[in-house]
Amino acid sequence: MNQIIETILDHRSVRSFTQERLTAEEIKLLVEAAQAASTSSYIQAYSIIGVSDHKLKEKLADYAGNQSYVAENGHFFVFCADLHRHEQIAYEKGVDIKATIESTEAFMIAVIDAALAAQNLAIAAESMGLGICYIGGIRNHLKEVSEILETPEYVLPLFGMAVGHPAQQTDKKPRLPLQSVYHENKYDGESAIAKLAEYDETISSYYRARTDGIRTETWTDQITNRLRHTKRTFMKEFVEEKGFSKR
Amino acid sequence: MNQIIETILDHRSVRSFTQERLTAEEIKLLVEAAQAASTSSYIQAYSIIGVSDHKLKEKLADYAGNQSYVAENGHFFVFCADLHRHEQIAYEKGVDIKATIESTEAFMIAVIDAALAAQNLAIAAESMGLGICYIGGIRNHLKEVSEILETPEYVLPLFGMAVGHPAQQTDKKPRLPLQSVYHENKYDGESAIAKLAEYDETISSYYRARTDGIRTETWTDQITNRLRHTKRTFMKEFVEEKGFSKR
Repeated sequence: MNQIIETILDHRSVRSFTQERLTAEEIKLLVEAAQAASTSSYIQAYSIIGVSDHKLKEKLADYAGNQSYVAENGHFFVFCADLHRHEQIAYEKGVDIKATIESTEAFMIAVIDAALAAQNLAIAAESMGLGICYIGGIRNHLKEVSEILETPEYVLPLFGMAVGHPAQQTDKKPRLPLQSVYHENKYDGESAIAKLAEYDETISSYYRARTDGIRTETWTDQITNRLRHTKRTFMKEFVEEKGFSKR
Repeated sequence: MNQIIETILDHRSVRSFTQERLTAEEIKLLVEAAQAASTSSYIQAYSIIGVSDHKLKEKLADYAGNQSYVAENGHFFVFCADLHRHEQIAYEKGVDIKATIESTEAFMIAVIDAALAAQNLAIAAESMGLGICYIGGIRNHLKEVSEILETPEYVLPLFGMAVGHPAQQTDKKPRLPLQSVYHENKYDGESAIAKLAEYDETISSYYRARTDGIRTETWTDQITNRLRHTKRTFMKEFVEEKGFSKR
């Protein structure tokens, strides 16, 4: 196994960072790494907003559900689906591309492009000894987040990423058994759930060991409880309001 | 700059592979690397279908628009948004989570989870000296692709990835200027387009040099032409038919 795969396999989310800020050179290198990811038909349909302003970070932390590490980190990145540039470029050439960029297909392209770039940035950061944590919580108040980041039509903030020098040691969380995730030649629903009882044991032990027995829930319990309550029910309307996935 | 960032920055898509198949150990390691990526609230809302059956690969190549490297490679992976397992788990516990998993929010979570996993697999493969190419083309005939891969409700194939031993040397394609993609503290639409004329020159030269002057188009021309015609107009309906982004 090479060093790169070791880094990838060694990922864990970090939720406590030192005061040390990322340097301008580090930020530039991380964004370049993000940009090197594949992009659908060379479209590059995403933007990254780096947040250094502390007041702004505190507001984002608040919107994300009072997660202090959204404000306290080395740098905070917000990844956005972005077809705004494309619309402007075409408009200047007298071409109307709204039917395309407002399609669900284009929305998927932009979300995937943004996520591939983000994961490159995450791996690059971890290779530099930095810690990272994805912040889906910015979608709790996505309208307000869009307002303070001043994102126009055809730009949709998707998630944040806190990056910084780790101030804590965290553990790797065990992933699903391979056969729950990986199928050969066709989707195999039975295999996907066959080993979940065993996995539930693993996860229950994981929590028990780390909380002095206070938390003991299994993965399937956790998932069921999380998905029992529907969150962010405004999303469909808001996504469409921003110009995405309308048709 | 460390070796990992060098690997990331050195990415180029590979569209021609030798006959050598990936070994079972290589495939396992790549899937483990994929699984190590971050996942929203531990939901792990994706699946990977590895396609080794050559007849199946040929069908996929056909659906993807006659791209031979979809059939001729070391292994072909299909990444799917997957909330099927979750629905089954909750159903067995007597809990109805359909309102959640059918939401646009859950669709975004699943697409992002799948893309993060895919990019980990891509980097891991490249670190092993393998080449990769994302295949969005499987969405050309997504209904047929879903049928031959036998994906049930709440599973949506998103894109493929051809992986294998490179049989060609390809060039890196220059990315947008950093200021077109990266913003500080707020979205800056003017900066995003300010350097595009310069970038257009770069891209035009890139094609001119590689095609003996036959191709000379700029990035903004290419984008405008690609987005002028709306592709995959069935996507919104099909995504909803599979149970995603319905509400």
